[in-house]
Amino acid sequence: MTELLNNREYKKEQLKKLLLRIHEGEDVNKLKEEFRQVLSGISPLEIPIIEQELVKEGISAKDIAKMCDLHVELFREAVAGTEEVEEKDLPDGHPLKTLYLENKEIMKDAEMLNLYARTLATTKDERMKAEILGVLEEIVGNLRKVGFTHYNREEMLTFPYIERRGLTAIATVLWTKHDEIRFMVKRLAELLRKKDEMPWEEFVERFKEKASEVSFALSDMVFRENNILYPTLKALLSEGEWKAIRMQEDEIGYYKVNPPAWDPGEDVKPLHPWEINPELSVEELLNLPKEVQQALKGRPLEFDKSQLKREGDIDLGTGFLSIEELKAIFEALPVDVTFIDKDDRVRFFSPGERIFTRTLSVLGRPVQLCHPPKSVPIVNKILKAFKEGRKSEATFWLRIGERYVYIKYVPLFDKEGNYLGTLEITMDIEPYRKIKGEKRLLDWRD
Amino acid sequence: MTELLNNREYKKEQLKKLLLRIHEGEDVNKLKEEFRQVLSGISPLEIPIIEQELVKEGISAKDIAKMCDLHVELFREAVAGTEEVEEKDLPDGHPLKTLYLENKEIMKDAEMLNLYARTLATTKDERMKAEILGVLEEIVGNLRKVGFTHYNREEMLTFPYIERRGLTAIATVLWTKHDEIRFMVKRLAELLRKKDEMPWEEFVERFKEKASEVSFALSDMVFRENNILYPTLKALLSEGEWKAIRMQEDEIGYYKVNPPAWDPGEDVKPLHPWEINPELSVEELLNLPKEVQQALKGRPLEFDKSQLKREGDIDLGTGFLSIEELKAIFEALPVDVTFIDKDDRVRFFSPGERIFTRTLSVLGRPVQLCHPPKSVPIVNKILKAFKEGRKSEATFWLRIGERYVYIKYVPLFDKEGNYLGTLEITMDIEPYRKIKGEKRLLDWRD
Repeated sequence: MTELLNNREYKKEQLKKLLLRIHEGEDVNKLKEEFRQVLSGISPLEIPIIEQELVKEGISAKDIAKMCDLHVELFREAVAGTEEVEEKDLPDGHPLKTLYLENKEIMKDAEMLNLYARTLATTKDERMKAEILGVLEEIVGNLRKVGFTHYNREEMLTFPYIERRGLTAIATVLWTKHDEIRFMVKRLAELLRKKDEMPWEEFVERFKEKASEVSFALSDMVFRENNILYPTLKALLSEGEWKAIRMQEDEIGYYKVNPPAWDPGEDVKPLHPWEINPELSVEELLNLPKEVQQALKGRPLEFDKSQLKREGDIDLGTGFLSIEELKAIFEALPVDVTFIDKDDRVRFFSPGERIFTRTLSVLGRPVQLCHPPKSVPIVNKILKAFKEGRKSEATFWLRIGERYVYIKYVPLFDKEGNYLGTLEITMDIEPYRKIKGEKRLLDWRD
Repeated sequence: MTELLNNREYKKEQLKKLLLRIHEGEDVNKLKEEFRQVLSGISPLEIPIIEQELVKEGISAKDIAKMCDLHVELFREAVAGTEEVEEKDLPDGHPLKTLYLENKEIMKDAEMLNLYARTLATTKDERMKAEILGVLEEIVGNLRKVGFTHYNREEMLTFPYIERRGLTAIATVLWTKHDEIRFMVKRLAELLRKKDEMPWEEFVERFKEKASEVSFALSDMVFRENNILYPTLKALLSEGEWKAIRMQEDEIGYYKVNPPAWDPGEDVKPLHPWEINPELSVEELLNLPKEVQQALKGRPLEFDKSQLKREGDIDLGTGFLSIEELKAIFEALPVDVTFIDKDDRVRFFSPGERIFTRTLSVLGRPVQLCHPPKSVPIVNKILKAFKEGRKSEATFWLRIGERYVYIKYVPLFDKEGNYLGTLEITMDIEPYRKIKGEKRLLDWRD
């Protein structure tokens, strides 16, 4: 075991030295041969672990991502001809199969982008130019969706499982690259929109160059995912984890694929990241591919074993809160709520400073007795329309001093469609009417 | 007992007939003598019960309130010279004492209003006119607060206790009259504001007339409360109930009085309306004033014995909700929330359609891993400022397609000031920017 560790340690040191030399500006072509040699001895599954160690040793994730451009290119050469982990063994609808299939679509679109951009630059015929521009607009429009769908599913649904097992660096490095690609595609779309604001020759030259960069970045990411992320996921995630992922995928959406339902079996319990045992058992270790076993044996991973559910927590279906947290949340809401139950009795109001004062004495009071008698017939009409399903909201707005008070009534129903009661929501909308322009997270100053 | 019942039934019938005759337009002066006779045989405490029975028999609360103007005037004559229940026996800070003291202030201001309005009409000196107008503006301005404070406390804090015991008609009749007075005072204030838009003579004449009406209505209500509502409350409410009322009064506020703290004792548990036993025990009955006993013996009251807290309900301090109701409330909110706990881990997000999709996989995930790596340093800065108490919110806004998305981060603390976590609130503010004018409850159409 010491020998294996030393072997990995040695290879890591070699890789690190090479990456740093590139970072410091050394000639890349000179180093290519050395890279090739070092990489030939490293399994694709070891790369993320080594990346992570490098991050720990002070190299920023951004730098790693930058340097990775070369190492992935080399890596691609290094593994050329070897057997890739692929989607063929996976059942239809399995989230990993969907990811592989999407990557084929992305690769195709990236190549198309490059091809059409180059064709555009050499086309003289005006009608042909217009046609190609139309195709390019469609391709670029589609590629913008890669970030919202394919990358987003990876970041939101799969990353938590590898983070939990201590492999946070894979997630961080990939996310950084994803964001770079999102930004590049966005800029490319902008350039396409502004084509009439510059001479045609300038536009096609710039577009060809940028399209080529985007195309390379996209296919580079496909390669990176197919060879690093997906094998890692395949090696580590259980059927229950994939089942949980499958249950959430539809909410985010897909890139040009439409996966069928997939269920590993009714007896398989969906496992969310906080429910897994992140520590690998001996049995699990032995079932891992040889390369991963080797990589994992080298060092103890920092498993995330924090418990999500605490004693006394309320299970709300989308999280676990203590009563104290729940009260504080209602108090902090920028809206006041009051809830009357199916029997028209006031059952709850949010605490704290409110637009319309509520006191404990209102609890249990029939809503008809909480209004000026003159308003009661209308209150009853609204509730009747809600209960009969004829209306799904009633909204009102009025000026009260400096405030522009907006009041909304919404009927609530359970999953079977039974009327649960009506929620009154009140808020001062005046501040939102004065907002102008944008203020983004990155604009924040301490 | 049958005799007592019959006696009350007889008097009620007499009263009802008289009220109906007035309602039908019969000469009031002719009836005054008959009223006097009937009323002389009825205790002040019986009036609300009879009013209630009349409501049940199909006479509208509004009609009763209208007819009551006369009957209270007569009633005032009838009880003149008899011993009133008063504030003298009550300790300082007792809610009932506060109500009596406020009524003295209201009575004084109502008389002042009338006096100054009449003086204004006869004053020729311009400087004097201006001075009187100043005083009147102040008085009218003050009187507008009667509705927000004195009446509001009665409606919100005391009415639920008598409603619970089945005496809903007192509450409904008084609230109708309160609202009439609120409206009258509001119109009087408007008239005062518009004094320069009409000839002076026209203004003073109209103002004198309206001020006299307001003055009468206000003092009439004082009389009504002192002789009907307060004795009823005094007879029925226990120390625990008054204690609960006292605990909530400050939130609503007072009319020209500033009551000191009052506590019937640490051993007295505050009793909210839903916690009382609304059915009067034999012991309680025997402790009631003789007149109330008599009135109550006549008929069984419709006690409200509905239970507020159901099995499995969560006690949120300001109400009791089932988990199902709680989930439905979060889903219906016009804002999306996500909560990270004190250890920066995502603990809860509101379900339903959201601006920024959240999936279960995010639960337990450190917030730093939920953001593009580029944003993490700023997320950390904001959280640090929150934890150190240097900032109490961070807000952002940006356009996303048709939406104008507003994002607010707020740190939450427990009662001891310990940091509980941070709430992210997101909402689309675009719809609120398009709203114009007012739409009030009474404008609602099915």
